[in-house]
Amino acid sequence: MTGSSGGGLRLRDDFPGVGDWHYLDSAATAQKPQAVIDAIARAYGPDYATVHRGVYERSANMTLAYEAARRKVAGFIGAACDAEIVYVRGATEGINLVAQCWAAEQLKAGDRILLSMLEHHSNIVPWQMAAEKTGAQIDVVPLTMDGKIDLDAMQAMIRPEHRLVALAHVSNVLGSVLDVRRAADIAHAVGAKILIDGCQAVPRLAVDVRALDCDFYVFSAHKLYGPTGIGILWARRELLDAMPPYQGGGSMIDKVTFEKTTYAPAPTRFEAGTPHIVGVVGLSAAIDYVQAVGLEAIHAHECALVGRARAALETMNSVRAFGPDDSAGILSFEVEGVHPHDVGTILDETGVAIRAGHHCAQPLMRHLGVEATARASFGLYSDESDVDALVRGIERVRKIFG
Amino acid sequence: MTGSSGGGLRLRDDFPGVGDWHYLDSAATAQKPQAVIDAIARAYGPDYATVHRGVYERSANMTLAYEAARRKVAGFIGAACDAEIVYVRGATEGINLVAQCWAAEQLKAGDRILLSMLEHHSNIVPWQMAAEKTGAQIDVVPLTMDGKIDLDAMQAMIRPEHRLVALAHVSNVLGSVLDVRRAADIAHAVGAKILIDGCQAVPRLAVDVRALDCDFYVFSAHKLYGPTGIGILWARRELLDAMPPYQGGGSMIDKVTFEKTTYAPAPTRFEAGTPHIVGVVGLSAAIDYVQAVGLEAIHAHECALVGRARAALETMNSVRAFGPDDSAGILSFEVEGVHPHDVGTILDETGVAIRAGHHCAQPLMRHLGVEATARASFGLYSDESDVDALVRGIERVRKIFG
Repeated sequence: MTGSSGGGLRLRDDFPGVGDWHYLDSAATAQKPQAVIDAIARAYGPDYATVHRGVYERSANMTLAYEAARRKVAGFIGAACDAEIVYVRGATEGINLVAQCWAAEQLKAGDRILLSMLEHHSNIVPWQMAAEKTGAQIDVVPLTMDGKIDLDAMQAMIRPEHRLVALAHVSNVLGSVLDVRRAADIAHAVGAKILIDGCQAVPRLAVDVRALDCDFYVFSAHKLYGPTGIGILWARRELLDAMPPYQGGGSMIDKVTFEKTTYAPAPTRFEAGTPHIVGVVGLSAAIDYVQAVGLEAIHAHECALVGRARAALETMNSVRAFGPDDSAGILSFEVEGVHPHDVGTILDETGVAIRAGHHCAQPLMRHLGVEATARASFGLYSDESDVDALVRGIERVRKIFG
Repeated sequence: MTGSSGGGLRLRDDFPGVGDWHYLDSAATAQKPQAVIDAIARAYGPDYATVHRGVYERSANMTLAYEAARRKVAGFIGAACDAEIVYVRGATEGINLVAQCWAAEQLKAGDRILLSMLEHHSNIVPWQMAAEKTGAQIDVVPLTMDGKIDLDAMQAMIRPEHRLVALAHVSNVLGSVLDVRRAADIAHAVGAKILIDGCQAVPRLAVDVRALDCDFYVFSAHKLYGPTGIGILWARRELLDAMPPYQGGGSMIDKVTFEKTTYAPAPTRFEAGTPHIVGVVGLSAAIDYVQAVGLEAIHAHECALVGRARAALETMNSVRAFGPDDSAGILSFEVEGVHPHDVGTILDETGVAIRAGHHCAQPLMRHLGVEATARASFGLYSDESDVDALVRGIERVRKIFG
């Protein structure tokens, strides 16, 4: 780690995937520090063994590392105990697991699910699938003018029929930050459970699930500077304990006969098959890295960069920036009369990588009255040079299409 | 790759996890060649980007690599086209996907599922879960005296009510190899579909799913010298096309509104969320490595090692070897009067890693009349020194307990 100076973090040299590149697509997936890559290489090399089953020493060591990572995750997000931490493929699977093992089991016709207008497809489609199975209905909380989930509106519209609320902690398009504690209080007042999609929050904000008072929380490791194919579902222990298994297979059972199979307790019950062992090791290394930098420092750093970018964009007549002024690390915009894909392509030619598209949030696009946006998203390795390159690139777009 | 000599493969130097260690737990998970580890490190480093979404060049390149890997997998197992290849977490998830999206959709009360006595829990429990949902019943094909799935018995017991047959290509306990083509013919004669669990076969035998004439085939990358957290479900295209989605989320949709969501065609429909990108890259590198060695050479090499081990064990009065003489790369045994865990622990002290336990095959354990077995399993990096160390270790066990 190369440390910080002059009020901003100076960490890009830790990331072999960054270099001179102006990578502004961290909300899609984050680059990995060398420390994480090295941990992964060791885990596939001299340390490699399976977990939970081997009678030999290296397997016992890998099992210790694998379960120590679970405790580390629990500490990182303020879980009550490591038994509340379920390893999943990513946030998407975490939400699907809750939709299938909690919602599809608990909901019935007449019940309602409350989402918001800015949700990612992964926090919409699983609930639609659960609703289809159970006959439950979905309602949608509108947004404030500046693109936050409107909690006043939520408070006005929630009813005892709402059994579940599912909201993004940070919008992947607008960067809007939810007041999770207030949303949880509103949900709990009518007896609803609340799931928080923490994908964009966990890399940017210090998260304490007990202080937030939510019931389910999910995130993906690959957005947290960790490996692909691994993520976390956190749930209150009593909820997990009452949920049936998700996938059947090895490890998740207590005893198998062809007549009757009994299942292991949570979280093991939800982790069928050989797990993504090295993914867990890499996630653990990523958490070490992020904690050493500190989430307060990361959040302040990203906010400063987004602020700098937003200020520059606001001076350009033909550019419209979306989202609230206090957006966290993410800035969507459009250049009048230019398709976002063209913006992205021209920026790419100048060494700036942004994302252009619907960002898996088609309902939000319709709400914004656009088909797509251009999106610049920041990570702890981003710096002023990235913002300046972005701004120069947008000026070039305006010149070409002007 | 260091090549072969003297009729046997000499590849252990390619594997940083092997070295002087006598690793005989390859059926649990295989060690990784340096080439795979290097491919993974590159993919997390200078090549890292997301797939399918970026408008910038590195993301386009990663997408090309990701989809080229799908074609490589298709060629590796003889699929008709790459649209038949679904990326899953592992074989366990592949089976669960078929159990949920095919069996739970297609089966009804009165229908029957046919398994065998030697199946891994991952090829039992998902079917029990589907049977519970649908009211279908499960039947079990017995084994021959030497521990193969008894296809004569299967032929005699199968009925038109059997809609699905699910069998292991190679037993993870006994190494018994199934005549998949004959099993498929028997299944198809009554109109049943057949799923093959190829976990232990794909690393050891050349597999051609069309020549085998099966309907579904699953395997895990981590047993094929590849990364953890990634595996393959192959299915005939017309079956995949007719199956509803598995998990909801990003990428698997066509269009999302709160009123109605439409889904992408297969295989995309089954791949919700950001995939295990680097897992796919690593799997691709693993297939390159295995193909360069050649599966015929690997199979011959492992058979020679198992034969050498079996011959040595058969000279010992108090040792019983399980499984047929032509078992593929896997040899279970017991030392009379010694618990398999003690066998494993003593072997570990002498630098030999085996597995001891029920191997996620409790019904087979009951059939064999044991609680557990000791199991030695070989990989392409194994050699005679491993067999000799195993034999010396077992002699030490007999001396200690003698």
